Amino acid sequence: MKKVAIIMGSDSDLPIVEKAIGILKEFKVPYETHVYSAHRTPGAARLFAVSARENGFGVVICAAGMAAHLAGAIAANTTLPVIGIPCTSQALDGMDALLSTVMMPSGIPVATVAIDGAKNAALLAIQILAVEDETLAKALDDKREADASQILEKDRRIAAEYHAE
Amino acid sequence: MKKVAIIMGSDSDLPIVEKAIGILKEFKVPYETHVYSAHRTPGAARLFAVSARENGFGVVICAAGMAAHLAGAIAANTTLPVIGIPCTSQALDGMDALLSTVMMPSGIPVATVAIDGAKNAALLAIQILAVEDETLAKALDDKREADASQILEKDRRIAAEYHAE
Amino acid sequence: MKKVAIIMGSDSDLPIVEKAIGILKEFKVPYETHVYSAHRTPGAARLFAVSARENGFGVVICAAGMAAHLAGAIAANTTLPVIGIPCTSQALDGMDALLSTVMMPSGIPVATVAIDGAKNAALLAIQILAVEDETLAKALDDKREADASQILEKDRRIAAEYHAE
Amino acid sequence: MKKVAIIMGSDSDLPIVEKAIGILKEFKVPYETHVYSAHRTPGAARLFAVSARENGFGVVICAAGMAAHLAGAIAANTTLPVIGIPCTSQALDGMDALLSTVMMPSGIPVATVAIDGAKNAALLAIQILAVEDETLAKALDDKREADASQILEKDRRIAAEYHAE
Amino acid sequence: MKKVAIIMGSDSDLPIVEKAIGILKEFKVPYETHVYSAHRTPGAARLFAVSARENGFGVVICAAGMAAHLAGAIAANTTLPVIGIPCTSQALDGMDALLSTVMMPSGIPVATVAIDGAKNAALLAIQILAVEDETLAKALDDKREADASQILEKDRRIAAEYHAE
Amino acid sequence: MKKVAIIMGSDSDLPIVEKAIGILKEFKVPYETHVYSAHRTPGAARLFAVSARENGFGVVICAAGMAAHLAGAIAANTTLPVIGIPCTSQALDGMDALLSTVMMPSGIPVATVAIDGAKNAALLAIQILAVEDETLAKALDDKREADASQILEKDRRIAAEYHAE
Amino acid sequence: MKKVAIIMGSDSDLPIVEKAIGILKEFKVPYETHVYSAHRTPGAARLFAVSARENGFGVVICAAGMAAHLAGAIAANTTLPVIGIPCTSQALDGMDALLSTVMMPSGIPVATVAIDGAKNAALLAIQILAVEDETLAKALDDKREADASQILEKDRRIAAEYHAE
Amino acid sequence: MKKVAIIMGSDSDLPIVEKAIGILKEFKVPYETHVYSAHRTPGAARLFAVSARENGFGVVICAAGMAAHLAGAIAANTTLPVIGIPCTSQALDGMDALLSTVMMPSGIPVATVAIDGAKNAALLAIQILAVEDETLAKALDDKREADASQILEKDRRIAAEYHAE
Repeated sequence: MKKVAIIMGSDSDLPIVEKAIGILKEFKVPYETHVYSAHRTPGAARLFAVSARENGFGVVICAAGMAAHLAGAIAANTTLPVIGIPCTSQALDGMDALLSTVMMPSGIPVATVAIDGAKNAALLAIQILAVEDETLAKALDDKREADASQILEKDRRIAAEYHAE
Repeated sequence: MKKVAIIMGSDSDLPIVEKAIGILKEFKVPYETHVYSAHRTPGAARLFAVSARENGFGVVICAAGMAAHLAGAIAANTTLPVIGIPCTSQALDGMDALLSTVMMPSGIPVATVAIDGAKNAALLAIQILAVEDETLAKALDDKREADASQILEKDRRIAAEYHAE
Repeated sequence: MKKVAIIMGSDSDLPIVEKAIGILKEFKVPYETHVYSAHRTPGAARLFAVSARENGFGVVICAAGMAAHLAGAIAANTTLPVIGIPCTSQALDGMDALLSTVMMPSGIPVATVAIDGAKNAALLAIQILAVEDETLAKALDDKREADASQILEKDRRIAAEYHAE
Repeated sequence: MKKVAIIMGSDSDLPIVEKAIGILKEFKVPYETHVYSAHRTPGAARLFAVSARENGFGVVICAAGMAAHLAGAIAANTTLPVIGIPCTSQALDGMDALLSTVMMPSGIPVATVAIDGAKNAALLAIQILAVEDETLAKALDDKREADASQILEKDRRIAAEYHAE
Repeated sequence: MKKVAIIMGSDSDLPIVEKAIGILKEFKVPYETHVYSAHRTPGAARLFAVSARENGFGVVICAAGMAAHLAGAIAANTTLPVIGIPCTSQALDGMDALLSTVMMPSGIPVATVAIDGAKNAALLAIQILAVEDETLAKALDDKREADASQILEKDRRIAAEYHAE
Repeated sequence: MKKVAIIMGSDSDLPIVEKAIGILKEFKVPYETHVYSAHRTPGAARLFAVSARENGFGVVICAAGMAAHLAGAIAANTTLPVIGIPCTSQALDGMDALLSTVMMPSGIPVATVAIDGAKNAALLAIQILAVEDETLAKALDDKREADASQILEKDRRIAAEYHAE
Repeated sequence: MKKVAIIMGSDSDLPIVEKAIGILKEFKVPYETHVYSAHRTPGAARLFAVSARENGFGVVICAAGMAAHLAGAIAANTTLPVIGIPCTSQALDGMDALLSTVMMPSGIPVATVAIDGAKNAALLAIQILAVEDETLAKALDDKREADASQILEKDRRIAAEYHAE
Repeated sequence: MKKVAIIMGSDSDLPIVEKAIGILKEFKVPYETHVYSAHRTPGAARLFAVSARENGFGVVICAAGMAAHLAGAIAANTTLPVIGIPCTSQALDGMDALLSTVMMPSGIPVATVAIDGAKNAALLAIQILAVEDETLAKALDDKREADASQILEKDRRIAAEYHAE
C-alpha cells in the first residue's frame, strides 16, 4: 500500500498531528512523520516533496499555522495529492492559516480540511488511497457505520431523558 | 479509469464549473456533470452519493455558494473523496461558502479548494486518480512543466522590458 | 398542542440545548430531544424530518457547530418552520456556524437565532405555536412583563447606588 | 387567515422586499407593507408592533440595512414571530446588518434569514402560518416539489451536454 | 452643570460601566446610572430618552453587547449627543456590538468609542460638556498632561534599563 | 457660536465630506474645511489641533481612509470633541478605517460614526453644539420631525400600493 | 548602489507593480523585474533568492495575491530584507493575501505593506537603501516635503472654497 | 554601527518587546528602548522621530495595540525604515492593530510584521542593517543555519518515533 506522509511545520503542532496518526494506525495505513518548515528548512521540505512519489508515498498531509505555506510549498514540488491542516496559533483563531492554506492559485491545489482538523485529514488521505483499494473502502464504510451507531445510541439515551408530552 | 463527478448546487454555478470541465477534458479523464441541490433536491443528491462508488466514480467535485452544504451532504453519503468548491454569491465575497464547506466536523472530510477554484478542484481530482495511475501522474508533471515554461517565458519578456542599472 | 423537536448535531451540544429545554418546560410546551448529525447520521436526520409534521411536531429546533448543516438538512426535508442555533466550537468563535446556518439559498429558509442562543430558539418556537394559541400568547406576554419588572428592579437598585449631583 | 406584515426601514429597500411580496401573492397570503424606521420613526414602529396581534397579523417581516435594529425594535414590542432580513448597503457587504439582526439578547428572538433573503423570509412566514393550516402546508409541499422538478429538469439538460466517457 | 446619564443594557455590564463612573467622579461631573434594555424594557428606555434634555442631562452614554441597539434606541428619541460603548460578550469578540452601535443610518448618529472603552466614553462626555465650560476644559488639559508625565516617567525608567551601545 | 472644523486626510475624500458640509449649511453652523494628512503633513495637522479651541472651534470632524489615523492624531493634540468618519477605499470595504478610527486607547477618545457617515458626523457636531444652545436643539428637533413626516408619507404611499386582504 | 528586485507572482500583477517601478525610476535606483511563482516556478524563485545578495541586490519586493506565499518563499532563501505587497484578487478583498504575507513565523520576517501598496513598497526599499546613503536620504526628505507642499496647496484651495462664518 | 530604536506605545507591551531585545542582544546590535504614545505623548514621539537619523539610529521598531498609530506617527516624521509590530489587546485578536499598522496611505510606508511578531521585527531590523554590513549578514546566515539544524534534529527524533510500515 502507498504510504501517507504527515509533515508538521513545527514540533509544537505534534498534539494536533497525533490525532491524524491515531486514525492512520486504526486503519493500519503505513505512514511517516516529519518536521519540515516551509520557511526555516525550505530545502528539506522541497527534497522530501520532489521524491515523495518515488519513495512510495500516495498522499502528503501538511499541518501548519499562521501564514501556513507548508502545504503549498510541498504541493509546488509534487503532483501527489496534498492535504492541508490549518492550525490555530496565538492570534486570529486560525483564520490566517485557513486562508494561507486554501486560497491556492490555479495550478497547484491543496485539499484543505477544517482548522485543526487532523482527524479528517487522515480520513481524507485514507479515502484517497481507498479509491483503488476495496478493502480500505470497506473499512471506511465500517467506521462510518460504527460512528453512526454510537450517535444513535446517544440519541436513544438523550431522547429517553429529555422529553415532555 | 474511474470517473469524476461534478455536481453544482445550481445551474447558475455552470460558468465556474466549466473551468473544471476544461481541465478534465484536457487530461481525457471521464466525467459526468449534475445539478443537485443539497436543500432543494436532497433525495437526488443522496441517491447519487450512495451509489457513486459502484457507478464507477472515483472522486466527486461539488460546487456551491452561500451556506454551501452540497459537498458535506454528498460526503455524508459516500466514502469517496469529495472536493468542495466554495462559490462567491451576492454577499460576503464567498466567505460564507468557504466556511460552510471547509469546517466539516470530525468523521466526514471535504477536500476544500479556493473560493471559485474550479480549475484546482479538477486538478486535485486528477491527482487523486493519479495516485495509482502512472500515465496520469506523468501527464500532471508535463502540465506543471508547461505551465512553468510559460511563466518563465513571461519572466524573460518582462525582465527585458523593466529594468534599470 | 403541537410538539417542539430539539435536535443537536452532537451530544456535546447538550449544555447549550438544556437552556432551550428549560424554557419549553417553563411554558409547559411538549417537546422531544434528539441527537442526529447531518453528516454522520444523515439517514436518521432525514427520516425524522420527513415525518415530523405527521408525528405531531409544529417546530424543529436544530443546534450545531462548525459547518453547521443540521438545520439546513432538516429544513430540506420538511416544510415545518426550522430554527437554527449556531454553536461556538474551538475555532472562529461561532462565525462558521452562523454563516453555515443563516445563509440558506432561496427556497429553504432557516430561522436563525444568535450564536449559542438556545433560550431565544425556544422562545421563538413558542411564539410560532402561539400564533394560533391565545393562552400561549398570554403566557409569553406575562413572561415579558416579568422580565421587564426584574430589569427595572435592578435599575432602581443601581440608580440608587451610582449617581452624583 | 392571519396577515403577514412586511416592514422596511427605508423605501430604498423596496426592490428587495418586492421578492417577499411576490411569494406571498403566489400563496395568496394576505399582507400589508409599511415603511417604518426604528431610528427615524420609532413611535410609528412601536405603535404598529404593540397592536399587530390584535390587528390580525400572524407574522412580521422586517427588512433593514447597516445597524439594522428594525426587527429587534419590532420584536421588543410584540410576541408575534418577527423575521429579520439583513440588507446589504454600501459598506461591509451586509455583515453589519446580519450581526445587528441575529445577535439578539436572551428574551427577544428575531428569526433571521440570509442577507437580502427576502424570498426565504416570505416562505418562512408562510411556514409559520402553515403550522395550523393544512391547505397552506400542502401548498408549500407542492412548491417544493415544483422547485425540485425544475432543478432535476436542468440536471437532465446539463448532464446530457457535459460528460465524457 | 448638565448631567451625564450612563445607561447599561444589562446589569452584567456594570464592571465595564464602573470605569466610566470613575472618570466622571474624578472630574466631579454630575451623573445618573440606569439599567434599561432596548429590547426588554423598550418603554422605560424611550421615556428616559424623550425627557433627558429637560431633565438636565447634557450627554447620554450607553453600554450594550451583542446586537447592541441601546445607543441607537436612545438616540432615536433625543437629539442630545449619545455615546455608544460596544461591549464584548461570549462570541465574536465584540465585533457584533461594534457594528450594531456604529453603523447608524443617516439622521441618527451615535458617537461610538472602542469595544469596552468605558473610560473614553466618559472622557468624551466631559469633552462635550467642556465645549462651553472653560474650567472643565482646563481640567481635561491637566489630566492629559498628568497622563503624559506618567508615561514619560515610565520611558525614563525603561530607557535606562533596556539599551546597549 | 463655536465653529465646526472639517478635516479630510486627502482631497479625494471631498465627495464624502461635502455631505457633512451640506448639513452644516442647512443648520447655519459656521465651519472651516481643511486638507491635512496625519502622515504627510503631520506638522500642519498638529498645529491646527493645538490651537483649535482658542481659534473658536467647538468640534472637529475628521474624515480618512485606510489606516485612518487623522482623527486620532487631531484628538491627541486637543481636548475638543473629535468626530471620526472612517472612509472606504479600494480594499477591505472600510473595515480598516473603522478599526483604525474607533479602537482608540484609553485617554484619547474619538467619537466614531458609520463608514462614510459624513451626514451623521455633521449632525453629531451640531448635537454637541446644541447641548448649550436651545435654538440649535430646537432646529435639530424640527429636522427630526420633518424627516419622520417624509418617511411616514412614503409609508402611506407604499402601504396603499402593496397589500392584499 | 545595491539594486532592488521586484518579483511578481503572475504577470497579471504588472499594473500594480508598475507603480513601484515608477517610484524607483523617480529616485534613479537600479532595479530588475521578474515573474516567478512560489508555486508554479518554485525552483526559479529559490535560485533567484539564494544568489540575490551576491548578484548585487539590496532589497527584494514581492507582489502576490490569494494565498500569497511568494514573499515568504523568497525570504526563506535569503537574509536580504524582503518586502511583501499583498494583492487583491477576485475574492476576499485582499485579506487572504494580507494574512498570507504578514503572519510569518518566527525566524523569517517579511516587511509587509498595505494591500496593493506598491508605491509604498518601493519607498520602503529606498528607505532601506538610504540607511547608509545620505544622498538618497536627502532625496526622500525632498519628496516628503514636495508631497506635503502639494497637500497644503490643496488645503488652501479647499479651505478658501468651503467655509461659512 | 547604526542603532535600532524600539518604541512601545505602553509599558504593558514590554513582555512582547523583550523578545525583540533578546534578538538584538544576540546579534550585538546597539539599541535604545522607549515608551512613547502616539496619542498620549505625541510631542515626545515626534521629537524622537525627527532627530532619529541624526542621533545615529538606522531603523525604528514600533509596538502598539488597538488603533495602533505609533508606527505611522513615527514614520510620518522620519524617512528611516520604520517596522511596526501590531500587538494583541483585549478584543479583536490583534486585527485592529494589524490593519491600523499595515494599511498606510501612499507616501509613508510601515514595514509590518506578524501580530505580536517582536522577534521577527528585530530580525528584520538586523537584515536592514546587514544590507551594507557583511559581518552582520554572515551572522544572520549562521543563525538561519542553526535554526534549520535544530528543526532537522527534531525531525529525526519525531520521524523515528512516529511511523508505521
